[in-house]
Amino acid sequence: MSKKPLILVINDDGITAPGIRALIEVMNEIGDVVVVAPDSPQSGMGHAITINSTLFVEKVVIDKGNQTEYSCSGTPADCVKLAVKQILDRRPDLCVSGINHGSNSSINVIYSGTMSAALEAGIEGIPAIGFSLLDYNWNANFEHAKPFVKTIVKNALKNGIPNGVVLNVNIPNLAKKDIKGIKVCRQAKANWEEEFDKRKNPQGREYYWLTGKFVNLDNGEDTDEWALKNNYISVVPVQFDLTAHHAIQNLNTWELND
Amino acid sequence: MSKKPLILVINDDGITAPGIRALIEVMNEIGDVVVVAPDSPQSGMGHAITINSTLFVEKVVIDKGNQTEYSCSGTPADCVKLAVKQILDRRPDLCVSGINHGSNSSINVIYSGTMSAALEAGIEGIPAIGFSLLDYNWNANFEHAKPFVKTIVKNALKNGIPNGVVLNVNIPNLAKKDIKGIKVCRQAKANWEEEFDKRKNPQGREYYWLTGKFVNLDNGEDTDEWALKNNYISVVPVQFDLTAHHAIQNLNTWELND
Repeated sequence: MSKKPLILVINDDGITAPGIRALIEVMNEIGDVVVVAPDSPQSGMGHAITINSTLFVEKVVIDKGNQTEYSCSGTPADCVKLAVKQILDRRPDLCVSGINHGSNSSINVIYSGTMSAALEAGIEGIPAIGFSLLDYNWNANFEHAKPFVKTIVKNALKNGIPNGVVLNVNIPNLAKKDIKGIKVCRQAKANWEEEFDKRKNPQGREYYWLTGKFVNLDNGEDTDEWALKNNYISVVPVQFDLTAHHAIQNLNTWELND
Repeated sequence: MSKKPLILVINDDGITAPGIRALIEVMNEIGDVVVVAPDSPQSGMGHAITINSTLFVEKVVIDKGNQTEYSCSGTPADCVKLAVKQILDRRPDLCVSGINHGSNSSINVIYSGTMSAALEAGIEGIPAIGFSLLDYNWNANFEHAKPFVKTIVKNALKNGIPNGVVLNVNIPNLAKKDIKGIKVCRQAKANWEEEFDKRKNPQGREYYWLTGKFVNLDNGEDTDEWALKNNYISVVPVQFDLTAHHAIQNLNTWELND
């Protein structure tokens, strides 16, 4: 029996995306790799799960690596559930998600399919990390990201990730020599200023495309946005206990039971 | 000009669901109401947004209330973005989401379309509350929930909701006289033990239905699960800064930059 860690690889850009192929390549150097990833892009799916529709899973071969691969009709969170409860014969030692084509820093963590897969694994008690590269292009270059991904994964396997926490890693789109290092950060306060591009379809019915501008409202030098802007890789510990514990005292002054 | 608060009403079960109709009825007693809700059920959509598809919006009349209503082809988070940036001519004073048919307590907050609408409003700086009734049936009885919803909304308008926080309210499925009161709580540690029901389609291809059992792992008497089990309405303050601040010190001991 293999002494190597079992690593589950997931993403949200779809199983053929260059980002997940790069991640698989690195993970094959570290452990036994099983891939369970969506059969089509699922970006912006947040933590969606498929409860009113059926799920199809297909064993597939995409390239020549040592990994075993399954393509799934569901969302990234579905892929984790299927992998853990249906496909794998033992619990994975680690779940890695990505490498996403595009940033999942600051508030983007909320909308991210990549991070929802990592969070789903975390909820099930599996150490998990989401990786994203700050380049939205399908043909983004993931080469320079690989050694940093390896360093972070090896540290996670050696040290363990704290309970109830998953890691959100974002990597600047720079040559290796220009990346200054890896920084542990907090999520910056930021949001999207949406704009809607209003059009008419050929039948004259109005419709919208969602567009928008990312706005960082946080000047802190301990944030992921600061790190990325200053050529660092950001690592944010993310939790799925969403309770705003600091607000409980205030709410207890409300007149809720008069 | 009206001195009444402007209240945006959203849900994830779709604009015709009895739960949102009950919520609109209560909100009409408190403010000027605009409804922007999905044209079809969106349960389990988490914080999904529509970035690779078009959005349609239609002004509709569903019943006789004073509210203005729009039905939208997108997700609950899309509805908030469209309402705030495209439909409303001023910022709402409050966004309420629901009343959901079914619980969004503890870990369900992560998968919930109802709560994703509230979180989206919160991210945009609008005070927001999600309401859920512990009854999954389409014909659930929302009558007994109404006075409690009114009390919580009036408190929120009077006291203000702390910055960066939205409220997750769950209501037991009990007669009014059997509800013991309203309790401010933390999110219980719980998860779903999924099972997959494996079947074959008429063409002989295997597929799965996601099912599962909710498991509460938390005996704390300050949790939402405890409150609900003991016939209280639970109010959990929820935050969208997901940083696990307590884990930063530990991660800083890792050898990330050697």
